[in-house]
Order: sequence, then structure tokens, then C-alpha cells
Amino acid sequence: MLTYNIHHVAIAVENLDDAIAGFKSRYNVTPISRETVHDQGVTEAMIPIGGSYVQLLEPLSQESPVGRFLSQNGEGMHHIAFAVHDIESALAHLKETGARLIDETPRVGGGGHRIAFVHPNDLAGTLMELVEVEHD
Amino acid sequence: MLTYNIHHVAIAVENLDDAIAGFKSRYNVTPISRETVHDQGVTEAMIPIGGSYVQLLEPLSQESPVGRFLSQNGEGMHHIAFAVHDIESALAHLKETGARLIDETPRVGGGGHRIAFVHPNDLAGTLMELVEVEHD
Repeated sequence: MLTYNIHHVAIAVENLDDAIAGFKSRYNVTPISRETVHDQGVTEAMIPIGGSYVQLLEPLSQESPVGRFLSQNGEGMHHIAFAVHDIESALAHLKETGARLIDETPRVGGGGHRIAFVHPNDLAGTLMELVEVEHD
Repeated sequence: MLTYNIHHVAIAVENLDDAIAGFKSRYNVTPISRETVHDQGVTEAMIPIGGSYVQLLEPLSQESPVGRFLSQNGEGMHHIAFAVHDIESALAHLKETGARLIDETPRVGGGGHRIAFVHPNDLAGTLMELVEVEHD
């Protein structure tokens, strides 16, 4: 399995517009996309920083996973996503190593990418996502 | 201010060796450096992934900031660090915008880089670090 890049770092926020304005003002970075992903119950903004993104996540409802995260933890980092070239082989490898997969098979995430989540209790208390991306 | 890359994503862990072994086994990535930074009360391992790093942090004591983080939150993402070319001008800009700086002036962090932290209450509940890096 080759993990060739940090695709994004996701941050859960209460208000997407406020967070976008804060990143613009302070770090002079702006989103290149904004998308509602109903499957994950979020509206997400992707802010490119170098070859990676900061992904800002605003929940569609308090009962969504990100809504519950905000209720329990407040705003903050939610997950880290690694770019992979072949998500099926990456998931097969993770399963072999005993990783606890949230998604046994890929589903479609933001930007139309095939994605899968790996449980945070599995390694370093950190929710991890795989994002399948074409070779550069 | 130009933030040109995600320098690293830091994850607080109880045991550095266990976390390194987990990342090696599951994601086939390994640290290029391991360093004790007494000023921050941590031993840190830097795992290169693409143009960024995952930084694993093990506290030197329970009373250190990362030790207290672990006591309160358990293992998980601790901060995100942005690479900047000129940390003084970046800090000046942040201060102008009303950001709450933990370090008003740079200090020396891992790898000998000049670094500074920005308070998590300041934007998106996320502890942010600036790392001064030479132009590529």
C-alpha cells in the first residue's frame, strides 16, 4: 500500500462562512470548492494549501456524525485523509493488518472521489480516511 | 502572508514506538527523524507523507502540555502546522487580524525550525503552528 500524500485535514466547524472568513483573513487562503455531501451529512469547503487541503465541515444536522462530534467536542480537527492510488488494495491491506474499517468497501465522497474511513480507536485515536486519487 | 504548505499534522500518542509500528504496518510509512524537544516537553517522530509530515508526539511527563492533552482527551490529533517563509511577518499579520498568539515571537522547535503557536480558540477550535521553512 502506498500512501503518497496527505489529501486533507478536516476541521469540524459550527459555521462554514465564519470559518472560511477566518482562514481568508488570517492565512490568506480560500476554498476552491464547496459541496454538500448528503451521505456524510455535511457541507464541506476545500481550501488548497500546497498539495493538500484543509477541509472545513459544517454538519447538516445535530444528529449527523459531525453534528454529534461538535456537541461533544466543540470545533476542532475531525479526521486526517490520506491519498491512495488504489483504494481496494489499500482496504484489503488494512484489513489484513487487523485495522477496524468503518467502510469495508469504498463509497463516494466529496469531489466524486472514492473514499473509506478507518476507525479512530484503531491507531493513535485518529479517525482516518482514504481518498482515491489518480496518479499525478 | 503566504502559507504555502501543510508542514505537519501532529498526533498525541501514549507510546511512540507502538504508534510508529502501527503506521508502518498499516500505511507503510516510517519516520525520518526522532527528536526530544525539551522546550515543548515531547519526543517527536516525523513521518514524511508526500510533501508533509505526520508528527507523532509522546509527552516527556504527564504535566507537560501534551501530557495534559492526553489525560483530558486520550490519543488524537493535537495541532496542524503551516509552513511559512517569513515567520515574523506571518506573526505580525496574524496579530493585526486579532489572532491570539501563544508565541508572540518565534522559538526554536523540532528540526531547528523557528516556530510559533496560535491559540485554538482563535479559529475553528484548532491549535495551529507556524513553521518557518526555506523556499524550495
